[in-house]
Amino acid sequence: MVAKTMDELVSLCKRRGFIFQSAELYGGLQGMYDFGPLGVELKNNLKKAWWQSMVYERDDVEGLDSSIVTHRKMLQMSGHEDTFTDPMKDCKECNNRMRADHIVDGKCDKCGSTDLTEERSFNLMFKTSIGALDDGSNLAYLRPETAQAIFGNFKNVVDTTAKTTPFGIAQMGKTFRNEITARNFLFRVREFEQMELEFFVKPGTDEQWHEYWLEERLKFWEEQGVPRTKIHVLDVPADDLAHYSKKTYDLEYEYPHGVDELEGIANRTDYDLGNHTKDQANLNITAKVHENTDSTHKMALQDQETKEWYVPFVIEPSAGVERGFLAVFNEAYNIETLENGTERTVMKFKPHLAPIKVAVIPLKKNKPEIVEMCKTIKKDLQKLGLGRILYENTGNIGKAYRRHDEVGTPICVTVDFETIEEEIPTVTVRDRDTMEQKRVPVSELKKFVMEYFI
Amino acid sequence: MVAKTMDELVSLCKRRGFIFQSAELYGGLQGMYDFGPLGVELKNNLKKAWWQSMVYERDDVEGLDSSIVTHRKMLQMSGHEDTFTDPMKDCKECNNRMRADHIVDGKCDKCGSTDLTEERSFNLMFKTSIGALDDGSNLAYLRPETAQAIFGNFKNVVDTTAKTTPFGIAQMGKTFRNEITARNFLFRVREFEQMELEFFVKPGTDEQWHEYWLEERLKFWEEQGVPRTKIHVLDVPADDLAHYSKKTYDLEYEYPHGVDELEGIANRTDYDLGNHTKDQANLNITAKVHENTDSTHKMALQDQETKEWYVPFVIEPSAGVERGFLAVFNEAYNIETLENGTERTVMKFKPHLAPIKVAVIPLKKNKPEIVEMCKTIKKDLQKLGLGRILYENTGNIGKAYRRHDEVGTPICVTVDFETIEEEIPTVTVRDRDTMEQKRVPVSELKKFVMEYFI
Repeated sequence: MVAKTMDELVSLCKRRGFIFQSAELYGGLQGMYDFGPLGVELKNNLKKAWWQSMVYERDDVEGLDSSIVTHRKMLQMSGHEDTFTDPMKDCKECNNRMRADHIVDGKCDKCGSTDLTEERSFNLMFKTSIGALDDGSNLAYLRPETAQAIFGNFKNVVDTTAKTTPFGIAQMGKTFRNEITARNFLFRVREFEQMELEFFVKPGTDEQWHEYWLEERLKFWEEQGVPRTKIHVLDVPADDLAHYSKKTYDLEYEYPHGVDELEGIANRTDYDLGNHTKDQANLNITAKVHENTDSTHKMALQDQETKEWYVPFVIEPSAGVERGFLAVFNEAYNIETLENGTERTVMKFKPHLAPIKVAVIPLKKNKPEIVEMCKTIKKDLQKLGLGRILYENTGNIGKAYRRHDEVGTPICVTVDFETIEEEIPTVTVRDRDTMEQKRVPVSELKKFVMEYFI
Repeated sequence: MVAKTMDELVSLCKRRGFIFQSAELYGGLQGMYDFGPLGVELKNNLKKAWWQSMVYERDDVEGLDSSIVTHRKMLQMSGHEDTFTDPMKDCKECNNRMRADHIVDGKCDKCGSTDLTEERSFNLMFKTSIGALDDGSNLAYLRPETAQAIFGNFKNVVDTTAKTTPFGIAQMGKTFRNEITARNFLFRVREFEQMELEFFVKPGTDEQWHEYWLEERLKFWEEQGVPRTKIHVLDVPADDLAHYSKKTYDLEYEYPHGVDELEGIANRTDYDLGNHTKDQANLNITAKVHENTDSTHKMALQDQETKEWYVPFVIEPSAGVERGFLAVFNEAYNIETLENGTERTVMKFKPHLAPIKVAVIPLKKNKPEIVEMCKTIKKDLQKLGLGRILYENTGNIGKAYRRHDEVGTPICVTVDFETIEEEIPTVTVRDRDTMEQKRVPVSELKKFVMEYFI
């Protein structure tokens, strides 16, 4: 059974230490969340899977990690300063500010008044100021997407790696959007992480690469436990396209709050490199770009045969980490009725995403030989480099199993009196999904665990 | 030979794609850097080593990943709004602003004038504003340290993990300090990453835990290739202590620009939890704290025997990722004179830190069987989960070896005509440090590589 309400997910996230509201002790920051001990592992495992798939397993993608604070010129040239806005209205009675396209029946969502202002544009970028002079000359933005720094470093990456089309640059990291109304838990937040690939191709090959990446990305989500049947591919209507896009596929997932965007795959054409390049007039740029008299970088490649310079087109698969987290969490969430009539909550994460890989549990925590054996096993399994192996010293096996079902630990290993008495010591290994238990010799445990996870 | 000048490191970083100046194409942002294809791997490997050592290998530490944008109240209560300042002076002739304690001979470092203003305090926190109302009511800060969010989530972590003293909470991530003058490459920057552990202990045991962590941290840096002989432990004089500290050890490393801080290990006493807790009057807080009438969280633990509530003391090992990167980079940097009289630059990173673990190189890139074999080997080795395995298709073996020495790739595997003709195929394996080459059967390559790295 997949969760039908967001409340159930929020409750489990809070209870088990996946997600806390940021600054909860001071009333909370709207649209900002902290990842707790289990949340940070799940999030990092998802990011690791993306990097593995997008960088390590390929031969045509390089990684990048740029600064969050972004030069104003970058976001002027990209069009964000002018067009990265949402429509808003104010309530004249209570001064509440709302996203105009979210207003229901023309009423303020706080006081119910219908006396609202005209619609205006609100820029979603967070502002800050760099350096000690505070005269406005040092305005900078927190990046609204990781993409721009990829475009800004295009020439640096090409020069240092000798890459040519088709090739990509991948980046993961924090992004900031000052949403007028944050809502739906992790779905619409003001601070989040993106996983973005900008894949540079020869003009004319862009449409076939767009189809290629659509298929690749659906495969990726399937490998994370989000099946294709739950993802709806939306060919975004021309009127709804972002200012830089020729065509965009949205992968929309069936979230508890409704069908909504998990990832966008956009054909950004030569818009971005065209905006940031010097020497614009001589590069046959097809997109409508801003005049750039500041850039010192030529954002173009030379065709090896014709020797002509061209500005590559860009296909961009852009996913939200928190939105992926929420989809993965929702899919993993199961409540099962057991044979004895009781219920268990079990998070059936794919093994590589599970926050804790193996819990090692002593049957008695006041028996030194048992504790010692647990710690040795934990240390040995930790060395496999699979992720977190937990020595769980609470001492009640039944409760420990239930807790680890609820946080999605694939394997529990229990050390009992038999283990320390046997000539060839064995432990009880319990499977999260089947709840089956079997004895495995300690000497074969590493192999057993390795085979489970790889 | 260890590099003696920062310029050499900067040059290699730029040339090989480790580090680029942020927004270089628009003249650059002072004190902000982007990590290129190799830099992102080295940085992530260092962070992974820290997490491994601080969270995974222990049973008494939990992880956290909090938001960067921080509630103003957090930083008022922590003392940062009042005291996180540097002294500055302005030049009355050219309006240049300088850090007062960095001024040499009373002269402006731009125009040389001695006509400077009186010294004033400048707060180092970056400001921003949350939400659509821009009336100053929504002021927030980019966090100046990851530590505060750990203190803010103390109760959440205790409640969800049932931890009690001694235990710690670890966090890695971006931090922002609006330095008056950024300088010394990665050393003093405005946006950087921290790796911080807040380790909570019973009052009275804090001094012994302080010594424990000093030793642990020296061990850690040694494992990253930064020897103890290059780290000077400074017992920070009372006058130089941060506002929260009872005692601090600075680990100072011999950087190219001088001996300077790599990590600080502070005894923060009960200052931070004491500031953020409700019910301050009843908790016997020893530190001088701000009165807090807003917090909804009780930041205390109950002694299991006496049933008395106490606010734990905190030992904080706090390291800078970029400073660690720079130390590791400096230590790895070697220029060797070979037998034939030529020089080679070789980055002798510890294997677990190397950006590329193995480069797989075809002797001829236009021979399909060779290319095919290379790709199979890359795929097989990639599955070991050790990090990036590169299929290197440039085609000139000598140049490839030199390039991989310069970026610190421990192993190069070359597939040649013998490989595809032999009954039991073998490849040439070349060691970065010894430059020795030997033939290894393809069937034993995984085992060979695994043993090298683990």
